[in-house]
Amino acid sequence: MATINGNYDKLAAGYLFPEIAKRAKAYSMKNPGTKLLKLGIGNSTEPLAPTVVAGLKLGADKLAKAETYTGYGDEQGDARLRKAIAAQYAKLGADVADNEVFVSDGAKPDVGNIQSIFSADCVVAVQDPAYPVYVDTNVIAGRGGKFDAAGGCYDRLVYMPCTEDNGFFPEVPKQKVDLIYICSPNNPTGAVATKEQLAKFVEYARKNKAVIIFDAAYSQYISDPKLPRSIYEVPGAKECAIEINSFSKSAGFTGVRLGWTIVPMACVCENAPAGKLNGMWNRRQCTFFNGASNIVQEGGLAALSEQGQKECKETIDYYMENAKVIREGFTAIGLKVYGGINAPYLWVKTPKGIKSWEFFDILLTQAHVVTTPGAGFGPHGEGFMRVSAFGHRLDITEAVESVKKNLKV
Amino acid sequence: MATINGNYDKLAAGYLFPEIAKRAKAYSMKNPGTKLLKLGIGNSTEPLAPTVVAGLKLGADKLAKAETYTGYGDEQGDARLRKAIAAQYAKLGADVADNEVFVSDGAKPDVGNIQSIFSADCVVAVQDPAYPVYVDTNVIAGRGGKFDAAGGCYDRLVYMPCTEDNGFFPEVPKQKVDLIYICSPNNPTGAVATKEQLAKFVEYARKNKAVIIFDAAYSQYISDPKLPRSIYEVPGAKECAIEINSFSKSAGFTGVRLGWTIVPMACVCENAPAGKLNGMWNRRQCTFFNGASNIVQEGGLAALSEQGQKECKETIDYYMENAKVIREGFTAIGLKVYGGINAPYLWVKTPKGIKSWEFFDILLTQAHVVTTPGAGFGPHGEGFMRVSAFGHRLDITEAVESVKKNLKV
Repeated sequence: MATINGNYDKLAAGYLFPEIAKRAKAYSMKNPGTKLLKLGIGNSTEPLAPTVVAGLKLGADKLAKAETYTGYGDEQGDARLRKAIAAQYAKLGADVADNEVFVSDGAKPDVGNIQSIFSADCVVAVQDPAYPVYVDTNVIAGRGGKFDAAGGCYDRLVYMPCTEDNGFFPEVPKQKVDLIYICSPNNPTGAVATKEQLAKFVEYARKNKAVIIFDAAYSQYISDPKLPRSIYEVPGAKECAIEINSFSKSAGFTGVRLGWTIVPMACVCENAPAGKLNGMWNRRQCTFFNGASNIVQEGGLAALSEQGQKECKETIDYYMENAKVIREGFTAIGLKVYGGINAPYLWVKTPKGIKSWEFFDILLTQAHVVTTPGAGFGPHGEGFMRVSAFGHRLDITEAVESVKKNLKV
Repeated sequence: MATINGNYDKLAAGYLFPEIAKRAKAYSMKNPGTKLLKLGIGNSTEPLAPTVVAGLKLGADKLAKAETYTGYGDEQGDARLRKAIAAQYAKLGADVADNEVFVSDGAKPDVGNIQSIFSADCVVAVQDPAYPVYVDTNVIAGRGGKFDAAGGCYDRLVYMPCTEDNGFFPEVPKQKVDLIYICSPNNPTGAVATKEQLAKFVEYARKNKAVIIFDAAYSQYISDPKLPRSIYEVPGAKECAIEINSFSKSAGFTGVRLGWTIVPMACVCENAPAGKLNGMWNRRQCTFFNGASNIVQEGGLAALSEQGQKECKETIDYYMENAKVIREGFTAIGLKVYGGINAPYLWVKTPKGIKSWEFFDILLTQAHVVTTPGAGFGPHGEGFMRVSAFGHRLDITEAVESVKKNLKV
């Protein structure tokens, strides 16, 4: 008599974005002919760079000929791509070896799967608000405990509040925790940690033999040279931090699927000496994964070429100009706006203490604009909305103008 | 103090194929200039069909233009591809709905991840020998128990012997088990289950509320019209079976990465009514996965077109002709050969009761041929070698001739 993994039933609600899509669709059904303006899901909209498209086609062409056809690749990724990724870290002054790089089909799967190499007993700390995948994957793995509907928290997770008072980057936990998820530039708040702030977490982790899971998926949106793009810019971080990154937002690969995880040889925990965690992640990937698509990896290589980087940067600049349009438009009507300077997300405070989902409905019905309720990212997201700078300029401008013209609260 | 998932340390040995690669590499290093002839890893070698290459390039081209660019797709897969896959089942007389199809980046990840929706208490039955991923992923999830090095078995797993006596397809377990992995056409033995044999497992599963995980990755290699290509050709199977399949061997996508899993709405277990398992797998994929590459899915759609199917069939026929060459060559020197008729694998009995790894070394050193030791697939694989029909014709012929000429036992 097969029985189910009961942890799935502990999940508090449907995954945030499908829920938003459902509400938006329901509104459209009731109001046919109304054009919905999207400032919601963090989904890239601009075409791939020409150099990247050429790389992808090269990948397809190689498979068309017997002499260049390749089947299964290394589960860890194409050696050329691992090397190219490691070289990106060198530019930041961070020392990452090729065999510490594991190429994957995106940051989300890696963020979800990395917890599987750790004990189910580990106490997990997350930023609050946080990307729901950190929470949900740990709940499914049995680290969540019970969900307290009133407080909006799982009782075994440690929530690190990110608030206006602390500039949306938390203090280190007062209690002992084992796995710490940090996302910088942050999804959803758009806040970026300074080196000093990360150094405190590195110090905490080394002292407590905790491991930091550092999600750097938006690092290419940092323009301020003083802000760290990798946690490995902080001395000692290789001993306690795993870093995950992606081509999704840096090269428009949201649908193309490519990412990577760095598990440093030096990274240790209570019962894992140097090399052990690297070997475990290697085993995990060799057992559950069969490598990222060879075509897609060829595209990734092209994206990391000098010309590819130049072209991708133009698209990033385009999105960041969108962010500026949103910021200025929303500020003009008195909304309080955070983020959006070194990150593609803006964190908008709802007026008059209106709840997130209520403000979602107000923006939807009054301005026909779809945003993302901050409460969907954790209790301390309540009273905020995540607004995304991903979109065509005209659509962004239209949405901002609609909010300016139609919002009445 | 973070601690590791101790189940990783229970894994008996490195994953089979990296181990073979290591031994072959070591031999090459010691014998520079010796050309190794590969009959080992089940890796496609022939170029993609022209129609499929065109589909992949169409996928890349769409991303080059703002009007056709797409970002995140549905985690469950492109609606067109889900529909096309469901239509393939209709041709077999099996009734699969679009929302029972979940597109993924390959059969291996799905085979590995599907167990996560079931309780860690479930008792798992595997064919012996079996594809190592069934065993290893369950060991990592805590269902393996202890490894008995002498017997080569994990004490919590139930092994279903596949032997010469039963034609390499097992009887249903005598004890109660909860999850049953069946692979047909089988990797490694090349045996194909009849409808009657599958019907016995379906009957067992329904009676015991067990769930069958049916791996049909080689179904396109079945030419005998009487043999089932899907477990859903057996009445009642939708109530108890999840089926996993792939484009890897049917369209040469080993490196391109595309597969799918069918979780029927009707599929139930002890504490999961109709629809529940389908919903859980949906939640799993929405939380840990971000969809298969949009470019790759466009290639998959092309592969399922009428012209695509015709072209892919030519490559399958080519590999099956290889199988014939191997079968005839090996039989000519007195080796006993099974499989290779409706499957791309041949299951070769070692002469004189020589152990698998010993015969691996004999073939490597005498004939410079790399094969796969049967013992790597489980205790009942001992005394056999898996020989793969994937390869260029000239390489296959050269390897077979080398064995015929050089093997001395």
